[in-house]
Formats: sequence, C-alpha cells, structure tokens
Amino acid sequence: MGEPTVFRCLSCGREYGPWERDYHCERCGPLKGGLEVLYDYGALSRSLSPYSFAQTKRFSLWRYEELLPVGYEYAVDLRAGWTPLYSRPELAAELGLSGLWIKDDSLNPTASYKDRATAVAIAAARYLGKSALTCASTGNTASSVAGFCAAAGIPAYIFVPASAPRPKIAQLLAFGATVFAVEGDYSDAQKLCREARERFGWYDRSDGASPMTIEGNKTAAFEIWEQLGGEVPDYVVVSVGDGSIISGICKGFWELVQLGFSQESPRIYGVQAEGAAAVVHAFERYRSGGRILPAEEPAKTLADSIGVGSPQDVVRAVKYVAQTDGGFITVSDQEIIAAVGELARRAGVFAEPAAAASYAGLLKLLREGTIPEGTRVALVVTGSGLKNPEGALQAGGEPIRIPPRIEEVEKTLEL
Amino acid sequence: MGEPTVFRCLSCGREYGPWERDYHCERCGPLKGGLEVLYDYGALSRSLSPYSFAQTKRFSLWRYEELLPVGYEYAVDLRAGWTPLYSRPELAAELGLSGLWIKDDSLNPTASYKDRATAVAIAAARYLGKSALTCASTGNTASSVAGFCAAAGIPAYIFVPASAPRPKIAQLLAFGATVFAVEGDYSDAQKLCREARERFGWYDRSDGASPMTIEGNKTAAFEIWEQLGGEVPDYVVVSVGDGSIISGICKGFWELVQLGFSQESPRIYGVQAEGAAAVVHAFERYRSGGRILPAEEPAKTLADSIGVGSPQDVVRAVKYVAQTDGGFITVSDQEIIAAVGELARRAGVFAEPAAAASYAGLLKLLREGTIPEGTRVALVVTGSGLKNPEGALQAGGEPIRIPPRIEEVEKTLEL
Repeated sequence: MGEPTVFRCLSCGREYGPWERDYHCERCGPLKGGLEVLYDYGALSRSLSPYSFAQTKRFSLWRYEELLPVGYEYAVDLRAGWTPLYSRPELAAELGLSGLWIKDDSLNPTASYKDRATAVAIAAARYLGKSALTCASTGNTASSVAGFCAAAGIPAYIFVPASAPRPKIAQLLAFGATVFAVEGDYSDAQKLCREARERFGWYDRSDGASPMTIEGNKTAAFEIWEQLGGEVPDYVVVSVGDGSIISGICKGFWELVQLGFSQESPRIYGVQAEGAAAVVHAFERYRSGGRILPAEEPAKTLADSIGVGSPQDVVRAVKYVAQTDGGFITVSDQEIIAAVGELARRAGVFAEPAAAASYAGLLKLLREGTIPEGTRVALVVTGSGLKNPEGALQAGGEPIRIPPRIEEVEKTLEL
Repeated sequence: MGEPTVFRCLSCGREYGPWERDYHCERCGPLKGGLEVLYDYGALSRSLSPYSFAQTKRFSLWRYEELLPVGYEYAVDLRAGWTPLYSRPELAAELGLSGLWIKDDSLNPTASYKDRATAVAIAAARYLGKSALTCASTGNTASSVAGFCAAAGIPAYIFVPASAPRPKIAQLLAFGATVFAVEGDYSDAQKLCREARERFGWYDRSDGASPMTIEGNKTAAFEIWEQLGGEVPDYVVVSVGDGSIISGICKGFWELVQLGFSQESPRIYGVQAEGAAAVVHAFERYRSGGRILPAEEPAKTLADSIGVGSPQDVVRAVKYVAQTDGGFITVSDQEIIAAVGELARRAGVFAEPAAAASYAGLLKLLREGTIPEGTRVALVVTGSGLKNPEGALQAGGEPIRIPPRIEEVEKTLEL
C-alpha cells in the first residue's frame, strides 16, 4: 500500500497525521473541511514505474495499491474498477475530434462508478476496525454499500427518506442491508446518518463524508492513462452530482503529474442537469471571486443520480476543476434523454440518464467551441441504463408491427 | 486466430469444411444438426502454453483468440468476457465445500453471459461479410445483439412476439435496433427470423442457430481455469434455458483437456425451473436410452431468461453434459426467489432470477448428496438482477420506518 504522509484540510490547509481524522477538518467542518490524502510523491516516483501496475496482475483498482491509502489485504473480493475504455473513432471523426474514448463504469459490481469509492472506503473501515458501514442515499451509493457489505460479511445501515420508492430500496434489502426509512426529507436522513456514525462507530461512506471516497474515485484517471498506453486525453467530461467523482478524477490526473507519469492533466469538465446545478453555480461564483458556499439549491431533474440539491463535495470539485483549467456546464433533461439514445445507438453503451448527461455536455461543449476540434476526449459513463429504464423508455422509438410473413419484412425494409 | 479444421455435425458426424455451412448440418436440420467447430488440438498444444493468454494483455474473451474461429481484427470494441471469479470461502465452508467460486457474468457489456456468444458471432458475421445481425428473442440475447450492433455500426433486426412487454424492448430501441413485433407467438417470430436470414443474408445469432455461439460461450471455461491458476473445479453449476451456455462451458473444459492444460473436465450440472424443464426431461429420456427430441414443452416460470419451451441447443447440451458425467436438476420458482436474496446477501452478487437458479440448484445438489462435501464448485451467474428487478422485490424484506431521532435507531438495534 501507499503511505499517506498527511491528511490536509482543503480549505484552511491544516495538516493532520494520517488517519488522525476520519472525515473532515475539525475547524472547517464537513462541507468546507474536506481532507486531502497526500503521499510522498517524490519517493513514489522513484519506486514506481508506469509498468508497475500491470505487474500486479490485478484487474481492479487494486492494481494501484501503491497509490492507495489502504492495503490490498483489506480489499473485498468484488471487482471495482479496471472498467473498459472503448475507442469510438467513427463517432470521434463525426464530432470533429481526433479521439473519443468512453470509460464504461457501468461495468462495476453494482453497475456504477460509486463502487470505486466504496471499495476503498470499506477497506479503510476494515483497516480501522469499524464494525459496519453506513450511508444516507437512495441511489447508486446505497446499492454499492449494500453490495460490498454483503460480500464482506459486515452490516450495512442505510438511511433513506421514508418517501423513497420501494423499487429503489428492494435491491438494498435483497443485499441484506438494514434500511431505515426516516420520517423526514433527505437532509433528515443525512443528519441521522452522521449522528449514528458517531454513536455506533460505523464508518460513513456517504458521498463527500470521508476522503477515502476520493481515493477510490481517483483510480479511473489512472486507468484511462494506463489504457491509453501512458497518455492522457486533452479533455475528460463527466456528470456531476455531489462532486465526489469529478474531484477524484481531478486528483488522479494531478497525482500522475506529481509522479512524473504525465506532463500535464487533461482539462476536466463537469456536467449537471439544468434543474440541479448547484455545483455549476458555485463554480460561477468562485470564478467571479465569490464564495463557493452555501451551495444548497432545489434539485429537479429526471436524471435522478445527479439530482443533488446540497452537493457534499462542492468545495473540492470547484477548486480541483479550476486547477485543471476546466469547467462546468448544464444540459436540459431533454438533451439528457436524447443523449441516452444517442450514446446507446452510436457507441453501444447503455447509460442511465445521469450518466448520459456527460455525452449531452460534450455535444454542448463542442457546439460552444469550449472543446475545440481535433482534440482527444474521454467521456466517463458513471452508471448503467438498467438502473433507470425510464431513460430508455423516454428515448422512444417503436417496434414495427407486422403479420408473420417474410414479404411484410421485405416491404418494411424497402421503405 | 485459431484455424478450425472441420465443422462436424453433432448427430450424424458428417464433416464440413470450415465455414462451409453457417448454421447446421444439411442432412440433420436445425435442432439435431448443430455443428461442432473443431481445431487441430495437437498443433495448438505445441504452439500454446498456459501462459500464452496473459501475454496477449487483452482483458476480454479475445485473450483466447488462438482458440477462437475468428481473428481479433474482426472483434467489436466492447468487453465481453474476462468477468471476475469471486472466491467465497466462508459460504463454501458453511455449505461444506472446500471451495466456492462465483463467475459473475452479469459484468458483461449488456449485463449477461449472452455477450460472449454475440461477441464471437458478430466477429464471424464481419469475417463472412454479412450485412447485419438478426435474432428472435425478447430477452438477454436481443439486448446483446442490439448493443454489439450499435457498437459495431451495423444494423440489428430483432423479431419479437407482438405481445412482448414494452420495457423489454425499450432497450433494444434505444440501441437503435429495428424491432419487428410479429403478430403471433415466439415460434412465429423464430420462423420469420430464419426466413429473413436466408432472404436478406443477415447473420442469425439466435441461440442454438450457429456454432459461433458455442465458440463464444466456451470461453468462460477457459477463464475459470486461468483464474484458478491453471486448475479446474470439481463441479460447475449453471442455469439452463436454450442449452447454449452450458454446451459452451462443457466444450471449453473439453478443449482444455485436449490441449493438455487440464487432466479432466469438471462435472457440469445444469439447473432449470420446474415449470420450464424441457432440457431436464430430454436428458432423462436420453439416459434411459430414449430419444432427445422432440423437446417442446410448456414454459412457465418467473425466471424469464430460462423460460424456454423449445430449447434450440438441447441435443448438444444433453450429449455434452453426459460426457462430463454431470446432469440436470430442477428447482421451484420459490427456491429461485429465495436464491436471489441469498446470493445477494451472502455473496454480494445481485443476479436475475434465471441466474440465481444456479444457486438454488447447487443447494439442492448438496442436499441430495449429488455434489459431495469437501469438493470445489464454480457457480456461474449468467445475468444481472437489474435485468429483472421483480426478483429483488419478491425476495422481500421491509425498511424500518422511524422518526428522525438517534434514540429510535438505537432502540431498533437493541431488538
């Protein structure tokens, strides 16, 4: 495993010893005081080479154990990470790009990017001797926690608003998680989850809670670099809800630069839904010299997995993205639905609406000229279309009804 | 690529030159006359070593290109195969086994084992210069064909009965497939598909149609062997619908023996639903000296992906399984639903009912003593629980409704 040298506050820069704090800076609190896990990059750049990772013969994010804060011996046997990176040269050419790659993170154990964070967080929980995992979520994070806990044989305690629809929690219950339906809204569930982690010593893997989620999320950057043969693209485009995934991607590319494995970071662009754009607005305020927080806003979008009103990793996301010289953009629900269909039809990747938003964002960034022609882009697909079949249903199309005669098929084809 | 030496009829043994026939033996017809693709195993055993595959650095079934009938240059860039094999030692110990591994084929591009067959079939179609793919299916095969065709940029023509539910075909339409809703039942759709493949020169990837599906399906056996470090388990248990998947698994292990990479094949056991047990009954007839065909029966089970009344690969499945000294077994829908929950809860793998049937079958085989204590078993999970969330819903469990106070959480935990 890697040896973190320091856990540093994102806002005030205060440095804690490794593992001195589980969640956030004492002074700055949860939203502002996210911690950064830092390593001795000089030493690592001497002990590691770009070929070190393949030599592990591990086909998961644990191939980057040397850059993770917890050892492989604490890992759960579920294959998080090492998802495929598909090249789509025809689509790239049509969009005027010199390269387009799709990082398909729907092929994680519970079908979303969230498994990266959970894989590292649950390993940290075991390392720290925590008895259980907890989170406040109804979506992909909850599925991920429930699945990993089941595989690890440790309890999962999940807090959801009582209004959460039954199908969303059926999978959690199937995994054997204890699900608390909290009479109240999402923030009540969140608050209760934080109290419970303190009271019962559970490890909180809610998005934005612990720096371990970022350590897991950063690994997709390593994979893109390795899968491109030690190169990085010019741009990476990814959907944004809480801001944890994009923060991880930024940190991963930053670490590749620290290690001397890459000259520079790609510019990272985050995509949000128009009706749930708290991070976009925070970024705009930050760029015009204002304050990032508070970033609480209404959230209304059919792309449920990025429908986040109160993003927990907004400070980190805004700062990190700015450092890559990237930015944020919004897309409409209509564009998102169209993107579900187009991504499926043109690239053979069936994404949930929240994940397809990245493709809608890419199209807009190209239209606006923010991403110029002739560049190389990696698009991150954060979750499976099977998670939210509504996307496919709305993407539309109709079967062709015919009597069972070959002439009818022929007639149709001639149209 | 490997060089097939002969395409041989499963029933009459007639030998065709490689690619001389696309689908079945001229004399024996579709159901009886399935073709076996055979290679020069002597030559391959001299040119290959157990370490050859890792050297390809391909993380898909194309790492076994030397044992496949089509070259990698015809492959579509979607990661079929090289799915994880999870070890579950605690569960094994509890079941009295000395090893239990779960081959999670829900982590294929369209979330089912069917992607293995499609990957090789579409490569064959390209190699043969076919203009499109076709199939008759409403389920995992159809999704798989639609997804691979989208990624490859070639048309997919899919025949479904007009009664097929809209959500089942929404994904196909999203992938841009042309879906014919045939006024008639499943066999009308099948018949029309066969006529269309002849008339329009489309390549038919329906299960049981072409030997290419078996060539794709066999690769999971290679992976299990490689992932176990060059060993094979004593038993492999897998769910059975059309019989194509289990046939492929049998052939894969048989080829490992031909190559000298394994001393013997595991015993392979197939699991069907009580209400859709045509292959089980055919096997029973065969074992008592009767005829395999006809094997048409009603099919009634909630495990939709194995609800097959007229299994297309029944002859092959029965013969191959008998050769491994394995067998078939049925489980009830109730056992299947319980297995969805147990597999999720105990192993962290969320399977569709049809896929969890394998686990229900394993439990029954253990109870009966057919699989003895102390042996090593690999269980194949053929499709994702996200494909049929009904399984999770029926597996049951309820959230715990509480007011938003930590004392309420505490009270619940003390119960």
